[in-house]
Amino acid sequence: MTATVPTIAGGVTSPRGFRAAGIAAGIKASQALDLALLVSDTDAQAAAVFTTNRAVAAPVVVSREHLARSGGIARAIVVNSGCANACTGSDGMQAARDMAAETARLVSCPVEQVLVASTGVIGVALPMDKVRAGLPIAARALAADQGSAAARAIMTTDPFPKETAARLTIGAGRPADVVIGGMAKGSGMIEPMLATMLGFVTTDAALPPALLAKALREAVDDSFNAITVDGECSTNDCVMLLANGASGVTIDESSYPAFLNGLLAVCRELALGIVRGGEGATKLVTVVVTGAASPAEARQAAKAIANSPLVKTAIHGGDPNWGRLIAVAGRAGVAFELDRAAVSIGSTVLFKDGHPHDEAAPLAAEYLKGTDLTVSVDLGAGRASSTVWTCDLSAEYVRINADYRT
Amino acid sequence: MTATVPTIAGGVTSPRGFRAAGIAAGIKASQALDLALLVSDTDAQAAAVFTTNRAVAAPVVVSREHLARSGGIARAIVVNSGCANACTGSDGMQAARDMAAETARLVSCPVEQVLVASTGVIGVALPMDKVRAGLPIAARALAADQGSAAARAIMTTDPFPKETAARLTIGAGRPADVVIGGMAKGSGMIEPMLATMLGFVTTDAALPPALLAKALREAVDDSFNAITVDGECSTNDCVMLLANGASGVTIDESSYPAFLNGLLAVCRELALGIVRGGEGATKLVTVVVTGAASPAEARQAAKAIANSPLVKTAIHGGDPNWGRLIAVAGRAGVAFELDRAAVSIGSTVLFKDGHPHDEAAPLAAEYLKGTDLTVSVDLGAGRASSTVWTCDLSAEYVRINADYRT
Repeated sequence: MTATVPTIAGGVTSPRGFRAAGIAAGIKASQALDLALLVSDTDAQAAAVFTTNRAVAAPVVVSREHLARSGGIARAIVVNSGCANACTGSDGMQAARDMAAETARLVSCPVEQVLVASTGVIGVALPMDKVRAGLPIAARALAADQGSAAARAIMTTDPFPKETAARLTIGAGRPADVVIGGMAKGSGMIEPMLATMLGFVTTDAALPPALLAKALREAVDDSFNAITVDGECSTNDCVMLLANGASGVTIDESSYPAFLNGLLAVCRELALGIVRGGEGATKLVTVVVTGAASPAEARQAAKAIANSPLVKTAIHGGDPNWGRLIAVAGRAGVAFELDRAAVSIGSTVLFKDGHPHDEAAPLAAEYLKGTDLTVSVDLGAGRASSTVWTCDLSAEYVRINADYRT
Repeated sequence: MTATVPTIAGGVTSPRGFRAAGIAAGIKASQALDLALLVSDTDAQAAAVFTTNRAVAAPVVVSREHLARSGGIARAIVVNSGCANACTGSDGMQAARDMAAETARLVSCPVEQVLVASTGVIGVALPMDKVRAGLPIAARALAADQGSAAARAIMTTDPFPKETAARLTIGAGRPADVVIGGMAKGSGMIEPMLATMLGFVTTDAALPPALLAKALREAVDDSFNAITVDGECSTNDCVMLLANGASGVTIDESSYPAFLNGLLAVCRELALGIVRGGEGATKLVTVVVTGAASPAEARQAAKAIANSPLVKTAIHGGDPNWGRLIAVAGRAGVAFELDRAAVSIGSTVLFKDGHPHDEAAPLAAEYLKGTDLTVSVDLGAGRASSTVWTCDLSAEYVRINADYRT
């Protein structure tokens, strides 16, 4: 799926009818922003995808429950950084519930219309006194121009905040504007123990629940699910999408492709921002797998290549080591025909029809000095393809992750 | 499976009736030893396991063919280091066949009784002139005290050669000695593009073909298949076992457990040597998973933990980051119950019954200063367990793998 919609400056409050806030509640010792609130002025249809990790954090459990109880209606999302509220037992569950209840009181909505997310240290109790003191301050700060503050308040080790937006014109007869906005945090992983990827997307379009869920699933599959920094998946990962209909436009089957393109553009820019901000990352790497027996096998091979420490270190070192790409494709557990396989770095073919083209290695080495790189592997086994994004693996990654608490 | 047999100094020529040689044929630019020959004085029953990588190197194809054609009988194994003869097309296939044919001529056996292995750079033609010139020299050097030379000749980036042996007394009525010996090369991967793990084991016991294959499979499963440096698997990996019966002892069902124990002891010491010699490795880490729903799930979770860059960097940094262990277990795709799960570092429990025990973290941090470490995760989902071995992930690993050809 290709995103053809240009993104514009903006974030979660770019669509009409959304307000946000980001404040410092003291959860982070650094006194940086650590509490974000996102509110829709009216009931919004909500969809979400959550981590597949079986060690799920308390806020994930509570958000899932609330979506089920509210029938997919949400008014607010409350997020803290600095503490994951994961592996914290029954106290942690109570803390996530209290955080939602306090937000519901401040926003004047039923508690099940509040979704909760946390990111930060695993296994440490959420300091509820600080959350309780901070929430009223955040509620008072809610404004339509505070999307950027919210984007900063959800960061952990992220080197920069990630937010973007897209504007679409929907409808043939009486065209109207729809805006989609989003923010995300990622980082290569870790701040402190395991990094969480969170994404929050808003739109002033209205969508029927099934179409909203489908749009989120499809967009996430080719954006947040198509990136990898080190193959880890956290206890807290989630992507949430709120559609409040403030534009007056309802997306139907005929306008769905246009909406999906816009949603994909926003999600992909956020996802690529996470890769660019990966721990120790110096290069953004697009991994293209073609010639796969099925789309699932294409994705599996692309992820295997994108997560291979050998591939990632070779790219870091600027070494056109096509043998590593072949070897990873060969062990990826998918159909692979060596005699029909091919490897390119940039547009330079280094292996094809069973034979190396090492004479082209200097050209590929020159290309690898860049910072936005594409490597391609044809599995020679079919017609399916997949694209994923990753970053290189640097000694800095090891340093960040080995030295965290020392 | 536990190895209770002590290993002794020795190698592939410790069992009776085996001779070996290791010489410098000039395949490596460094003029280090790079051609090894291992010969059984009489026909030996042979078993082998090969890489599951679908990009298989020419020597793997040839060795598989020869085992099938000879009915599992082998007289010689010829191995070169410095060139993997992988991704080299039809010329590479011819080179592997020629290497076997020349060895067969020198040893005076049918060509299908020669097994071939190569390790080194992918995609580079094997310099057959050097192999042809070297083989007669190696054949003349064959001796019962040259096992160590062969062990050195199969090395690539290995920091030290790996060889060992075990002596067993078999039989209740008229006990007799059986010797098992082995050599291996591994390294964390790479020299130059992708590292290969090779293992060669000899014994002077005789075993029926089915029992020999079963013994190799079982021993490899708890040794070479239970280690991981970075999760990669090469185009050339293989483990070969030759049993020539020179001891006069034939292993049957009743003596099989004793033989398997000895074989496991040899294979495990070789495998742990590969981990200790992993690129940039500073610590040997034993990962124990218990409480799994099945042995396969136990192994899957243990491998996921052992390959996690987050776990490996935390151990490198001496950080008792139990949250990373929980998070990896949770995403490993196996049954996992957070409320019944537990994590220990050494003998220190850091998470149990859904609650952290961070008060014990200083004790665990002290323990992590050691170099031979155990981390344990109980999945809380059953009764199966698995043990795998890995090493830490250091900045040195990145440096070795990023800077190889620069």
